[in-house]
Amino acid sequence: MEYIKGGVCAPKGFVAGGVNCGIRGKEKRDLALIVSRSMASAAGVYTQNLVKGAPITVTQKHIEDGYARAIIANSGNANTCNPNGISIAEGMCELVETFTGIKQNDIIVASTGVIGQELNLEPIAYGMPSLMTSLGSHSDWAAEAIMTTDTAKKELAAKFMIGGRPARIGAIAKGSGMICPNMATMLVFITTDAKITPAMLQKALSEVVKDTFNMISVDRDTSTNDMCVVLANGLAETEDIHEVGPLFEDFKAALADICTQLAKSIAKDGEGATKLLECRVTGGKTDADARKIAKSVICSNLLKCAMFGADANWGRVLCAIGYAGAETDVKKIAVTFKSSAGEIKVCENGGAVDFSEEAAKKVLSEDEIVIDVALGDGDDAATAYGCDLSYDYVKINGDYRS
Amino acid sequence: MEYIKGGVCAPKGFVAGGVNCGIRGKEKRDLALIVSRSMASAAGVYTQNLVKGAPITVTQKHIEDGYARAIIANSGNANTCNPNGISIAEGMCELVETFTGIKQNDIIVASTGVIGQELNLEPIAYGMPSLMTSLGSHSDWAAEAIMTTDTAKKELAAKFMIGGRPARIGAIAKGSGMICPNMATMLVFITTDAKITPAMLQKALSEVVKDTFNMISVDRDTSTNDMCVVLANGLAETEDIHEVGPLFEDFKAALADICTQLAKSIAKDGEGATKLLECRVTGGKTDADARKIAKSVICSNLLKCAMFGADANWGRVLCAIGYAGAETDVKKIAVTFKSSAGEIKVCENGGAVDFSEEAAKKVLSEDEIVIDVALGDGDDAATAYGCDLSYDYVKINGDYRS
Repeated sequence: MEYIKGGVCAPKGFVAGGVNCGIRGKEKRDLALIVSRSMASAAGVYTQNLVKGAPITVTQKHIEDGYARAIIANSGNANTCNPNGISIAEGMCELVETFTGIKQNDIIVASTGVIGQELNLEPIAYGMPSLMTSLGSHSDWAAEAIMTTDTAKKELAAKFMIGGRPARIGAIAKGSGMICPNMATMLVFITTDAKITPAMLQKALSEVVKDTFNMISVDRDTSTNDMCVVLANGLAETEDIHEVGPLFEDFKAALADICTQLAKSIAKDGEGATKLLECRVTGGKTDADARKIAKSVICSNLLKCAMFGADANWGRVLCAIGYAGAETDVKKIAVTFKSSAGEIKVCENGGAVDFSEEAAKKVLSEDEIVIDVALGDGDDAATAYGCDLSYDYVKINGDYRS
Repeated sequence: MEYIKGGVCAPKGFVAGGVNCGIRGKEKRDLALIVSRSMASAAGVYTQNLVKGAPITVTQKHIEDGYARAIIANSGNANTCNPNGISIAEGMCELVETFTGIKQNDIIVASTGVIGQELNLEPIAYGMPSLMTSLGSHSDWAAEAIMTTDTAKKELAAKFMIGGRPARIGAIAKGSGMICPNMATMLVFITTDAKITPAMLQKALSEVVKDTFNMISVDRDTSTNDMCVVLANGLAETEDIHEVGPLFEDFKAALADICTQLAKSIAKDGEGATKLLECRVTGGKTDADARKIAKSVICSNLLKCAMFGADANWGRVLCAIGYAGAETDVKKIAVTFKSSAGEIKVCENGGAVDFSEEAAKKVLSEDEIVIDVALGDGDDAATAYGCDLSYDYVKINGDYRS
């Protein structure tokens, strides 16, 4: 697999654009559009929060038949907990139909921002002409338009082989706060020119999401609007993927790589974060135990603060393992902190080992930290991604709406 | 019930003391002792964390027979995840036996502080003579000696009636961070001169803890050393409580009141907290649903930050309800913020209602905020207690050990 430029426009037949239409101030891009030249297989995973954004409901309906051609998304307003949310989300799709001719039912719609404030269609209608003009190889404009508290644009593309023939996959994502996805994350839009049936695309996505977006947490707050969708338009000259086998595995490996990179970039850009945390658990009794433990460690506010302060307070790792709700023998646990500055074992057999605090501080002062947890209970492993908890998380969220 | 002075020494026949012995610097009291003049019924609830402090194991063994006479506790070191933790905890009890004659097996032991650093017996042995000298009506010294990052002493006592005759109950507690008790909280020591059998005392405690300490959270981090114990020495001239009935209810009501006050004071003194949050859920389909929802709201980092900023961001309340794992119809939810400055409804039927942001800011600027959630699904109710998330939480926990 070779990383290339172009984001969601890297695969053949996709164009994208993004403009400011006035939902979120007068300058920041807040409206994005991605369009495929031809009909594409579509698959999605969505938040499991009982409170669901209206765009989730509309998108689920629109891709029920397995196909879609376009994605419209806005930031600045989540269109959630509004009595007229569904008709607004449908209205956004109607506007796209009016301007592109793509049937409303083949359009995916997404919104992100404040919950519970009415989303007005007017600025979106007003912005449509310039949004159409912006369409082209402008994945970066679309990526910008879906950002909220994100500080970094999340965009990625790669060329990979399916049965020896080249295909391309691209993606944009947003997500910084209210991140603890359950089935999907924030907004992730993935495009590919691979030929794959809707059923196989959904299978690949569901399997990959389990190990990537579902394993990240910024603040344990599962959002109401999480959505991850893939459009596969089949314009690459690859064989059709309609069953499990080597071709499917080629595609799934590429999708997994892209999703892992995006999941890590979302965790690293967590609100106020200064560090990416990666908890690698090995030796779990079951897959579920390993996952619970990795997630529990990554979610501990106390550990997140310790990582912010580069403090090797491994007792907080043990504590989070202990309340994870997993089965494990705490007397066998070993913990090692790792970074590009080296590695240092801080706990063995569930108890202290001598280590140099100075050396630990050096390891933990890097901006990507691995917390390696060896359970010694079995053969299952899991990795979760998170970030530290800093003053800026509090600052950003103390008055988000103003 | 009438609140009185004296803390754990208010009930007849209890003395307490506290000194500095050098575990935690050279000035702050760090060693506490509570002694009953006669044998007392004893009951306890403990953390459900798989990683358990050695003192928990020793205390459980010592009160297995239902009786105890003394409590020794230190702050500055949790005596947890240490290979020799059990023998150190037993050693603390032996020291108390040597100095008081109370049998080691009738002594409760507790430790709080850093996890995974060896606890040395020497300073405790060295401090025993002055600890004995400090014994008297010095509940406040004992309360001070168990504080870690607490900023306020937690001490309470009351006189109440059992079958028309007076008895007394007193308590001290500590807890500020790593607070999300499961079966108990941090350290809570309760004394009473009521006459009650060990079995009835345990029943009253277990029932009360469910609605009080188990309903608070500072940071969702369930500690390894949570412990709540009661000693009832029967020196009041009240009838013996040996079965469920009016006498038991009299006692349980007093215990519930004391535990509610302490639970709220622990939440209010959460690390870095500027506000006490109380989420009152009514109209739950089941008791478990109401509890899950109240706890989920109180635990949301995003909502905690909004409360810190006095921002009426009710969408975060809905979001936390939605991922609570409870059954509820989100279309029926109403949310009202209340404080001594008034109340303001912000959500009805799961959607926005018009409200004055200015008035909401006024309500949320007080230091005790009630988040009233009316579900409209049934008749079950629950209340959870928590606190806001501030810069100081990050500061306190960025470098706790140094």
